[in-house]
Amino acid sequence: MASVIETSAAVRAGRQIAVEVTRANLDRIHTLDSSINAFTAVTADRALAAAARIDDLVRSGRDPGPLAGVSFAVKNLFDVEGITTIAGSRIDATLPPATRDATLVARLESAGAVLVGALNMDEYAFGFSTQNSHYGPTRNPHDLSRIAGGSSGGSAAAVAAGLVPMSLGSDTNGSIRVPAALCGVFGLKPTYGRLSRAGTRLFAASLDHVGPFARSVGDIAAVYDALQGPDPADPVCVGQPIEPIASRLDQGMDGLRVALAAGYFSSAGHPEVFAATERAASALGVVRRVNLPEPALARAAAMVITASEGGELHLADLKARADSFDPMTRPLFLSGTLVPAAWYVRAQRFRRWYCSELEALFRDVDVILAPATPYPAFPIGQRMMEVDGRQLPAAGHLGVFTQPLSFAGLPVLAAPIAGSGTLPMGIQIVAAPWREDLVLRVAAAAEAAGVLAPPPVRF
Amino acid sequence: MASVIETSAAVRAGRQIAVEVTRANLDRIHTLDSSINAFTAVTADRALAAAARIDDLVRSGRDPGPLAGVSFAVKNLFDVEGITTIAGSRIDATLPPATRDATLVARLESAGAVLVGALNMDEYAFGFSTQNSHYGPTRNPHDLSRIAGGSSGGSAAAVAAGLVPMSLGSDTNGSIRVPAALCGVFGLKPTYGRLSRAGTRLFAASLDHVGPFARSVGDIAAVYDALQGPDPADPVCVGQPIEPIASRLDQGMDGLRVALAAGYFSSAGHPEVFAATERAASALGVVRRVNLPEPALARAAAMVITASEGGELHLADLKARADSFDPMTRPLFLSGTLVPAAWYVRAQRFRRWYCSELEALFRDVDVILAPATPYPAFPIGQRMMEVDGRQLPAAGHLGVFTQPLSFAGLPVLAAPIAGSGTLPMGIQIVAAPWREDLVLRVAAAAEAAGVLAPPPVRF
Repeated sequence: MASVIETSAAVRAGRQIAVEVTRANLDRIHTLDSSINAFTAVTADRALAAAARIDDLVRSGRDPGPLAGVSFAVKNLFDVEGITTIAGSRIDATLPPATRDATLVARLESAGAVLVGALNMDEYAFGFSTQNSHYGPTRNPHDLSRIAGGSSGGSAAAVAAGLVPMSLGSDTNGSIRVPAALCGVFGLKPTYGRLSRAGTRLFAASLDHVGPFARSVGDIAAVYDALQGPDPADPVCVGQPIEPIASRLDQGMDGLRVALAAGYFSSAGHPEVFAATERAASALGVVRRVNLPEPALARAAAMVITASEGGELHLADLKARADSFDPMTRPLFLSGTLVPAAWYVRAQRFRRWYCSELEALFRDVDVILAPATPYPAFPIGQRMMEVDGRQLPAAGHLGVFTQPLSFAGLPVLAAPIAGSGTLPMGIQIVAAPWREDLVLRVAAAAEAAGVLAPPPVRF
Repeated sequence: MASVIETSAAVRAGRQIAVEVTRANLDRIHTLDSSINAFTAVTADRALAAAARIDDLVRSGRDPGPLAGVSFAVKNLFDVEGITTIAGSRIDATLPPATRDATLVARLESAGAVLVGALNMDEYAFGFSTQNSHYGPTRNPHDLSRIAGGSSGGSAAAVAAGLVPMSLGSDTNGSIRVPAALCGVFGLKPTYGRLSRAGTRLFAASLDHVGPFARSVGDIAAVYDALQGPDPADPVCVGQPIEPIASRLDQGMDGLRVALAAGYFSSAGHPEVFAATERAASALGVVRRVNLPEPALARAAAMVITASEGGELHLADLKARADSFDPMTRPLFLSGTLVPAAWYVRAQRFRRWYCSELEALFRDVDVILAPATPYPAFPIGQRMMEVDGRQLPAAGHLGVFTQPLSFAGLPVLAAPIAGSGTLPMGIQIVAAPWREDLVLRVAAAAEAAGVLAPPPVRF
């Protein structure tokens, strides 16, 4: 499948017809998605109409936008005008269709991109495996018996299977980075507050982020540039100006202080993950090690906040019809309603301390590398996972390395480590808040050096 | 007792000796405070040394500062170097002395003011009556059998009794405004985040404010100007520049849209309070009425947040030694530890809605007047109060009109209505966030018109 950059260049130059590109994508989704189960809705009519408008613009010599004719799909918690935002649930499936597009959907379409559908997820984004009981599990394109990761499993799998070259997901504790890693694609969780969440179904508002998936650093940067910018409709996305990144990716790593996260980030996972991370760091000449301040407490506090905010958001439904929830999320949301406020307040207080400690750490280092998940994708249905002789919840433990980073709102790219073997493994590239530019600069250098690459599309 | 402005002018001009002013104040405290019980510590040595330094500056022709030689005292939750910050508790009385002054104490001393002591309060600031079981109740200088209000009861009573011309207190739900109203003095609760809380014992951090008490609008403005300015040591006090107000008080009310709060703010109190408020508004030519959005919900949400944050802050002590708490606050703090996080999260979410509704309201009005308390000071020991035929907790209900305003962080001056009779009654003057200038401009006009005035000092 052609990249975002290639397709948009070809459409803009009139070498390709947007309608044909779109039709080819829709055909591919139609043929393959029954095996993957990434899509919960396909917006074929809307897509073909949008593509036709792009072609009209090109024919009339007007600018169709930087993403002209590129297909994309969004996690089904993004509002899409005319279809119901189900957020992976049965309960929300009874709501009326959305009356307008989410801000980021509108921005991608303004940039010329073509929405082709909505993507599967864990119910209300609470999970790391997209084993959705209502709509079925999304399958990993590299091994259909295994999970795609979650909660943005459809978003990652659709890109990994070449059904679309780019997609959008959300990440509260790792929900972009975990499936990106397990499916072998790039997934960017920007700084908290960087991208607008307006028109998305929130989960735990003080931790919710949204971001893109794609198959190369250049594609991620091109999409990210089209998504950027303040939005008064999201109260946390109001402060930062637009800082285009795609044109500044080739500066290399010279002068950047890059380190590998040690301690917590080198335990409680399978040896092959740490070996792959070490190999990637070593190939980039990264020898320095850093320890983050209290990452285990950060993860625990992230769980308290997530459960509390998620429990509050769904309190009325949990009281009135708990049996309508997915059995995978029901106990998580119910337990969230039982958290004492004192724990929540303490977790938020700890978070302020933790963020200020990280701020100090980033005075001394520019970019940190860390593993993305503690193990590759496991078989659908597997409940427990042995790690260092302990039996841990297989899906729940997937966030062990992502949660301490999103807890501080840091920008993180999850990227596929080249040559990971039969199952993809990912690395997290992390910088200080608002320094997406450094994250993507290091990623571009690593990609150019052959350290990062998605495994080939299998279909 | 001379005003802040008079005393500082006299000391600066060499017409008065700071050491003599200070000694007179200390003598007055020594003579009278056994009846009032406003002070929990008197810092005589430190005060006389500071006063001597002011006199040295004056004698050598250097600037002693705008508050030169003016005595002040602070609620005993402000750190004062060398004495233990007890915050009205027995538990904290076992802590070592503070090693440095709170930011606001240091700012007043830099401005030439002279600290003479620390003032009584409800334990850990949880209360509206300063009926402190450990240190005894602070008595209302206008009727020694009655409460001074709280939690900054010592701060209000010390100024009302003429023991000091100015003091500092804190206000989470009304703890500056309630005692100011009941004692017949001015008390300013500035915008949330305006004045630094660094070096104070917090109570419910997302609602805690600090501010001054004095006997005239000019004095309040002079103190406020010396207190203003960002402080990196308080994370919520970092954004706003200094905007001196004292020199801009004489602009009158012309051009300002002033309204009286109606509905909620004209019920659940005693008739004489509403009559006094109406009389004051009428004397100022204020005929417009406004309704605030959902003030009863705002008060409930303020209680949830206060209890949750207060419970969290004292959780370890509540577990280990609940019997060391004041019986007046123990049930409040204990119940705070039992609040579900979902309530807290919902209360904070409601708060964002409420603040945005108030922002909209303040596009249409500049200043709002409201009663300060539902009734004047009641006898010490009285548990219940009849209001509209209902029996309500006498102290707890005192915050009914203050809580919905601090909940949104609005700047509010509590001011004594002239001629309230034997017991003082107060009015709240309220503006949009960061518009302390409008609050004090209206107050100065009302004071000049004879509508606001503290009752005479009785001693």
